[in-house]
Amino acid sequence: MSVILPTLALSAGSALADEGMWQPNQLPTIAKELTNAGLKLNPNDLTDLTGFPMGAIVSLGGCTASFVSDQGLVATNHHCVYGSVQYNSTAENNLLKNGFLAKNFAEELPATPGSRIYVTEEITEVTKLVKSGVTEKMSGSDRYKAVDTNSKKLVAECENDDRYRCSVVNFHGGLEYYLFKQLTIRDVRLVHAPASSIGKYGGDIDNWMWPRHTGDYGFYRAYVGKDGQPADFSKDNVPYQPKHHLKVNKSSVDDGDYIMVLGYPGRTNRYRTAYEVENTFSWTYPHAKAYREEIIDLIHTHSEVGSEARIKYESTLAGLANYAKNYGSMIHSYNKGTFLQRKQELETNLASWLNSSAKRKAQYGEALSGLDKLVKMDDKQQARDLILGYMRYSKMLSTAKKLHRLAVENTKPNIDREHGYQERDIARFEQGMKSVDRRYDEKIDQEILVAMLTHYVALPKAERLKSFDKFFGLTNTTAKNFNEKKLRKQLSKMYKNTKLNSQEQRLALMNKSVSDFNKSKDPFIQLAVSSFKERKAIEDKSKELAGNIQAFRPKYMEALIAYFNDNDLPVYADANSTLRITYGNVKGYSPQDGLTATPYTTLEGIVAKDTGVAPFDAPQKQLDLINKKQYGEYAKKALGSVPVNYLGTLDITGGNSGSPTLNDKAEFVGLVFDGVYESIIGDWDYDTKLNRSIHVDVRYMLWVMEHVDGATNLIEEMDIVE
Amino acid sequence: MSVILPTLALSAGSALADEGMWQPNQLPTIAKELTNAGLKLNPNDLTDLTGFPMGAIVSLGGCTASFVSDQGLVATNHHCVYGSVQYNSTAENNLLKNGFLAKNFAEELPATPGSRIYVTEEITEVTKLVKSGVTEKMSGSDRYKAVDTNSKKLVAECENDDRYRCSVVNFHGGLEYYLFKQLTIRDVRLVHAPASSIGKYGGDIDNWMWPRHTGDYGFYRAYVGKDGQPADFSKDNVPYQPKHHLKVNKSSVDDGDYIMVLGYPGRTNRYRTAYEVENTFSWTYPHAKAYREEIIDLIHTHSEVGSEARIKYESTLAGLANYAKNYGSMIHSYNKGTFLQRKQELETNLASWLNSSAKRKAQYGEALSGLDKLVKMDDKQQARDLILGYMRYSKMLSTAKKLHRLAVENTKPNIDREHGYQERDIARFEQGMKSVDRRYDEKIDQEILVAMLTHYVALPKAERLKSFDKFFGLTNTTAKNFNEKKLRKQLSKMYKNTKLNSQEQRLALMNKSVSDFNKSKDPFIQLAVSSFKERKAIEDKSKELAGNIQAFRPKYMEALIAYFNDNDLPVYADANSTLRITYGNVKGYSPQDGLTATPYTTLEGIVAKDTGVAPFDAPQKQLDLINKKQYGEYAKKALGSVPVNYLGTLDITGGNSGSPTLNDKAEFVGLVFDGVYESIIGDWDYDTKLNRSIHVDVRYMLWVMEHVDGATNLIEEMDIVE
Repeated sequence: MSVILPTLALSAGSALADEGMWQPNQLPTIAKELTNAGLKLNPNDLTDLTGFPMGAIVSLGGCTASFVSDQGLVATNHHCVYGSVQYNSTAENNLLKNGFLAKNFAEELPATPGSRIYVTEEITEVTKLVKSGVTEKMSGSDRYKAVDTNSKKLVAECENDDRYRCSVVNFHGGLEYYLFKQLTIRDVRLVHAPASSIGKYGGDIDNWMWPRHTGDYGFYRAYVGKDGQPADFSKDNVPYQPKHHLKVNKSSVDDGDYIMVLGYPGRTNRYRTAYEVENTFSWTYPHAKAYREEIIDLIHTHSEVGSEARIKYESTLAGLANYAKNYGSMIHSYNKGTFLQRKQELETNLASWLNSSAKRKAQYGEALSGLDKLVKMDDKQQARDLILGYMRYSKMLSTAKKLHRLAVENTKPNIDREHGYQERDIARFEQGMKSVDRRYDEKIDQEILVAMLTHYVALPKAERLKSFDKFFGLTNTTAKNFNEKKLRKQLSKMYKNTKLNSQEQRLALMNKSVSDFNKSKDPFIQLAVSSFKERKAIEDKSKELAGNIQAFRPKYMEALIAYFNDNDLPVYADANSTLRITYGNVKGYSPQDGLTATPYTTLEGIVAKDTGVAPFDAPQKQLDLINKKQYGEYAKKALGSVPVNYLGTLDITGGNSGSPTLNDKAEFVGLVFDGVYESIIGDWDYDTKLNRSIHVDVRYMLWVMEHVDGATNLIEEMDIVE
Repeated sequence: MSVILPTLALSAGSALADEGMWQPNQLPTIAKELTNAGLKLNPNDLTDLTGFPMGAIVSLGGCTASFVSDQGLVATNHHCVYGSVQYNSTAENNLLKNGFLAKNFAEELPATPGSRIYVTEEITEVTKLVKSGVTEKMSGSDRYKAVDTNSKKLVAECENDDRYRCSVVNFHGGLEYYLFKQLTIRDVRLVHAPASSIGKYGGDIDNWMWPRHTGDYGFYRAYVGKDGQPADFSKDNVPYQPKHHLKVNKSSVDDGDYIMVLGYPGRTNRYRTAYEVENTFSWTYPHAKAYREEIIDLIHTHSEVGSEARIKYESTLAGLANYAKNYGSMIHSYNKGTFLQRKQELETNLASWLNSSAKRKAQYGEALSGLDKLVKMDDKQQARDLILGYMRYSKMLSTAKKLHRLAVENTKPNIDREHGYQERDIARFEQGMKSVDRRYDEKIDQEILVAMLTHYVALPKAERLKSFDKFFGLTNTTAKNFNEKKLRKQLSKMYKNTKLNSQEQRLALMNKSVSDFNKSKDPFIQLAVSSFKERKAIEDKSKELAGNIQAFRPKYMEALIAYFNDNDLPVYADANSTLRITYGNVKGYSPQDGLTATPYTTLEGIVAKDTGVAPFDAPQKQLDLINKKQYGEYAKKALGSVPVNYLGTLDITGGNSGSPTLNDKAEFVGLVFDGVYESIIGDWDYDTKLNRSIHVDVRYMLWVMEHVDGATNLIEEMDIVE
């Protein structure tokens, strides 16, 4: 049953195709645009969460996926099932390397522990409930607490039915709140994944790049109890039978064709103020990029390629490098483009528009300046906050802080505990404590702490933590007289004496009391305990500020939306991991003067890129098939070969990974899995000329499945049309 | 007056446009193809060296250029006039940085000493004269000597008239010889060069790359005595009035248009045997690339950026890196492509064709196997020869060897002296001795010698030089027991005691006798003297082999040409720095699956690439003009901007630099200055799909000259048409 209560009717204005991550309830307002763009369905049908096609779209938490058979077969990206493939790999049977195919239900393997399939069944507007008790005059802290507690209560009520996972999500910076209720399937099994040399072809080198040749797909299956309800893993469970699943159109799409993506985009920042833009791009990103690169260098210096230490940090390195590259692209685009200038123009125009009406002026006149004043206050200690933030890469320090915090939160009633420390979070918390060993090396951890503390001592006295200074004997230390050797001596001792590197100890500490922590002899716990009061004060101050911002940002967004509506400009909420629709076309672009990215790559490009060395080491069987031009029925006439990946104009971001790409009849024609390098700044600033999504073509999926992997059982299971 | 005596009428067969570097005398045989491709002139007119347009094409020795006014104005690449700009630069007036423009004749500056403009006036076939006295049965050494002496005599006779520089050049591996007689203009002056941030925009990073935005043009002027004859520099000299000059068509050319390049391509290897191809690509290039990269690393390690030492080695580094990149591209193309396979197929087909006729079999049956046998013999000690070759990067060692050799050669009559040591070469030799100081750093020179000697001691005993081993005390040394420390000690002493780092000493040594050298106490001279006999023996052996190859390669080429003619395949001689014509079209290409290189770049691409840091630091004035879209009359409608560079299908190589690009009426429409990365293997294997020449568009030249540099005097001097 779907409950959609659109209270603030956002007109989409003269929506451009391509830009926009639309909420299902907005679609009727852009019905004309959708139809003009080529959609053959009634746009109103897309608003029904439990109807077709929305009912076939699911979340994996971080990734999107879709049902592609009536037996609960789920298609998503290879990088979304990667963890489960890794989990089932052994030295003797390396599924990551070889790929995996279950030829029948019995051969399917359990997904990595904690894997879930979320089916969004209800979206309820709860703005009034969330803001209940909130007044104009209350303090920031009180406002923050009121909103937080109301939200937690709504979630707790909703989760009374343990088949569901619920969340309250804010839209437009707190102008609206929605409660999302998701059926949670807990028995998830791995059905099929190609070899990583297909599913991850091009690896980190090709990440965010075009031309692309990645077979980024994999399959799960949802299982439920015999009663059809979510259940923990059991061999008696049966495949889930979704009400709707997508048909697979093996003809795929052509250059210029209508396509759309339904999915769960994570986070965008399209409505930030000019000040926020400038500060982020000229301060935050450059500094964060530098810290990331510094930590990457440290890890490289202190672990040899292929060593145990390096293997433990590969995933950390990938994450660090991923965002260093991401920030680098955004800084470059920002410096080359006119983004800030356009933001400033918008604010000038908004101000004129507000000032041209006494009523508007009275209502919104202070919104922007008030918001910016608060944000600037929050940014005052950003140098310190960023450094303290990057200290999280020291596993010992962050583990100590988390465990101590758990003890603190456990003294409160469940509903009052911080996010991440409530009863509903404990299973995941424990999972995190268990995973430390796989991602920790003492030497590297220590080097990271030395590097970050070296930045820390260069901070102005007033910004430093007295407790930290005291603990490390840095009270009279500045960058000039910093004695790194002395610090290293102390740290060596700490690493020698800590027990946090033992899983048993960490799990035991999950049940200890605050006073146990206070008495602890573990040096990292002592650091966490002794700095807690000061860190808590910073946190409280930040909540007070956040509460104050909660009073201003919705007002600013209200003014902005009114201005947009009045000027017939499209408005959609920033991405917030909730279900959205983006539509556009298959289309190439010009990444640079003198170059055109054509909308399709082909099988031959795989052979051309192949070096035999990962990440360009396609299976020999695949290379042989390509060299013999054994295209089966999947060649595209215009290309003279099988398309591998294609470009679209869709407005996507992280979280859309695994989303099905649908044609004008909402048939499955591929999976979105990435955006091009020039699109990265799109999280802030969508550019029609440069923003391109990258999709794996359904023809390539079917060709590999049929000709390389022999996954004919799955092809038979799906409804293939053309 | 032009003398063309085509004795071996090479049929061009069904010549493909694009591939082929045609000798002027071949053009009548491809008249139909030229006309079909779009040439509007009578192809026969292109054979007349002193007519239009050939009479307007000149050589700078290493670069090509052309007359573009009746007052001897010469257009060529920026990188071809770079040395002269550098020569005239001072700390106060940095012409490289600021560019240079003479607003009138009086302001023109002397080009770098030794600059010459060569006007080819006669090409005479001299095969019979060169081979006079050559018999089938003579030894390799005698054959080598006969050909060498005959050639030197022809050159000496031709150069009796000191206005001319002459050379005997072999075609088809010695199947034919031609004598080239070139009027030599000795008073060359610098007229105009844009700032390096235009003329070298993109620098080494963009070298061989597309998209490209380089304003690679500059202007010289030829001066002669009042009598119209070549003369040394004098302020009484007057501008040379060429019989022909090119008109400049400011409309430039469009996508698909006919274009041709007339110029002096340096060296190609299109007719090498399969064995030679395999050995070069799988042994020589990978090893040479590794040595280059090793020396680059050494220079980087032992000189800081911006240090005096680094500045001295910038040019050496550029040369090393240039060919390391070049070899890298060729190795990649070779490994990815089917070049070797096609060579082998050709040889199989050639063999069948030869064997199908008893006469042919008798005549050519042994040509290929005989040639390959000799080449293999020559390659036996290639590991040693390559290492000894790279020792030339030690300036002290190579200077000592050269000076000693000069004394040895001076004992012979001039005509018998080696190339490079004859009277005609002495001025350039002296120039080389003077230039040592500007490119030498003791520490780096020593490190290079240590590195190469380290490779040397790893050679099998039999390949090493006894004299070298004795000199360095390495007789019983292998890679295993090599004592680097001891070697370094000896080298330190050598560098401390040598006087070859003094220009005065080097010049004085040019006049010393062999016995003076024998008595020298200079350690590098002692090394040169003590190893001379052994090196000379190697050289003589190599000449003997070369002489034997001279008996076989022409035979192989004769067979190949007969086979090509019989199969209606095009034949043209490998490039050998003589005047050639290549024709084709303006055309983009696909460098990779999923990408298309469009045939033009535009002004906006300069702004997009610009970082403000060299080599992407266009002058602010230029950036401002582009941002204001001040295109003047030079915008191209289809592009909506001024074209900067364009792609052509022409078959070019090093030496073509500065060649004018001509339209179908032989009007100047730009300058060729580079090829794309995928073309680099083109020196061996032309690929219609990937070989692309890069040209600076005449519109960009004129736009910069008029709007950025105010070089209106030159625009007025040229015959501009449209």
